[in-house]
Amino acid sequence: MLNNIRVVLSHTSHPGNIGAAARAMKTMGLHHLYLINPRHFPDPQADTMSVGADDVLRDAVVCGSIDEALQGVVYTMAMTARLRDISIEVKTPREAMPLLLQHAATQPVALLFGTEMSGLTNEEMGKAQVLVNIPADPEFSSLNLAAAVQVIAYELTVASQSFLPGTQEVHPAPHEQVEGFFAHMEKTLFEIGFLTTQNPARLMQRLRRLYARTRLEQEEVNILRGILSVATEYNERLRARYKQEHPDISKRP
Amino acid sequence: MLNNIRVVLSHTSHPGNIGAAARAMKTMGLHHLYLINPRHFPDPQADTMSVGADDVLRDAVVCGSIDEALQGVVYTMAMTARLRDISIEVKTPREAMPLLLQHAATQPVALLFGTEMSGLTNEEMGKAQVLVNIPADPEFSSLNLAAAVQVIAYELTVASQSFLPGTQEVHPAPHEQVEGFFAHMEKTLFEIGFLTTQNPARLMQRLRRLYARTRLEQEEVNILRGILSVATEYNERLRARYKQEHPDISKRP
Repeated sequence: MLNNIRVVLSHTSHPGNIGAAARAMKTMGLHHLYLINPRHFPDPQADTMSVGADDVLRDAVVCGSIDEALQGVVYTMAMTARLRDISIEVKTPREAMPLLLQHAATQPVALLFGTEMSGLTNEEMGKAQVLVNIPADPEFSSLNLAAAVQVIAYELTVASQSFLPGTQEVHPAPHEQVEGFFAHMEKTLFEIGFLTTQNPARLMQRLRRLYARTRLEQEEVNILRGILSVATEYNERLRARYKQEHPDISKRP
Repeated sequence: MLNNIRVVLSHTSHPGNIGAAARAMKTMGLHHLYLINPRHFPDPQADTMSVGADDVLRDAVVCGSIDEALQGVVYTMAMTARLRDISIEVKTPREAMPLLLQHAATQPVALLFGTEMSGLTNEEMGKAQVLVNIPADPEFSSLNLAAAVQVIAYELTVASQSFLPGTQEVHPAPHEQVEGFFAHMEKTLFEIGFLTTQNPARLMQRLRRLYARTRLEQEEVNILRGILSVATEYNERLRARYKQEHPDISKRP
């Protein structure tokens, strides 16, 4: 179960934090570390701070993008120190980790941690289904990166000790299928003229939030993409007919 | 409530860990750090790792002994990575922290952390009422010191959010009174001839365990010490009479 969990650190600045995070993971039985564009890795400081967790560092997967790191993942939780205005669902570690284990019982899942200074970007958080906020003193809420990994990994271990697998038979769509759907949707919304601005980020974030709540299954992604394809074809047929019936304005963009 | 909690680090080797522990404390609203004979403190590495918790480091109390660090404390929990044969009570952080808060509601309490390499000594653990073991992978259970502080402080914060003060009216004896009682008892046990060896540590550990379970109140300490005093006086009278009745063996040691 813990074997299906990957810890993804995005754009980590200090290699010592990568090493300390590896150690924190290993103390709680987690072994799969993914690093998105770390500033320095491998690095002697990472080795020093990992102490006995050099195997976790050695097997770490360095990725060039978040989509690469989440390849094959069906469920992603992203850490946030702030409670934002545009948020998906925000849970405490205690609420969230049993839920993560339910998914990890059968398929790969991910825990996503941002940079030391600024956390995750909105774009990165848009790739997650749930946001997790570690309760802290509001006056000084910034945990060290490895300390946050330790708290989350600890909650996972405690949750795993009282874990009962669910009976639900679901086939959640992996990350890349969901991303494929969003890309298809954005393209379609442009084609049909719904998106007219060159900066559709905000609207797409809202749509991501909506679909994050539903936890799309594979078959549902196929259905939705089928609808998108038909919508475009229908739209193309309409345009063609319109041009045919109004040859005088066929030069309109 | 959190203001009555002191974090005591014993004989810490790496000043970076002191700084990281200070930061971990502050994120969870803990501010009172006590250091028993730290190898290097103050130290630039401690400052670097504390980030915004320089106030916790500045106010840290450096002590020459554990008894000095526990002065005035009525309830002490000691961290242990191992489940030992001679143990007091061992609890998980989740079980232990609500209990600590109950005591911290009215009086000073302490969380005791040992060295990076070997944890706490048996003598140090004998000063605690409860041992706390952070659940971890048995194959690799050694958390970084600051990571352990972070997990415990996090559990305290979570526990404080659902804390209801107890209605019990107790007056637990502070650390130094309990220690005074143990010293008195050991001396008395020698005087009355119960302890005959020069190494009474093991027996005293067992007696400590017994009294740790009872959570001695101040008045109870007075009663017990009264009994000890009377026992010694009685024993002295017995000896005097014995010597009087057997003048021939009065040279016995």
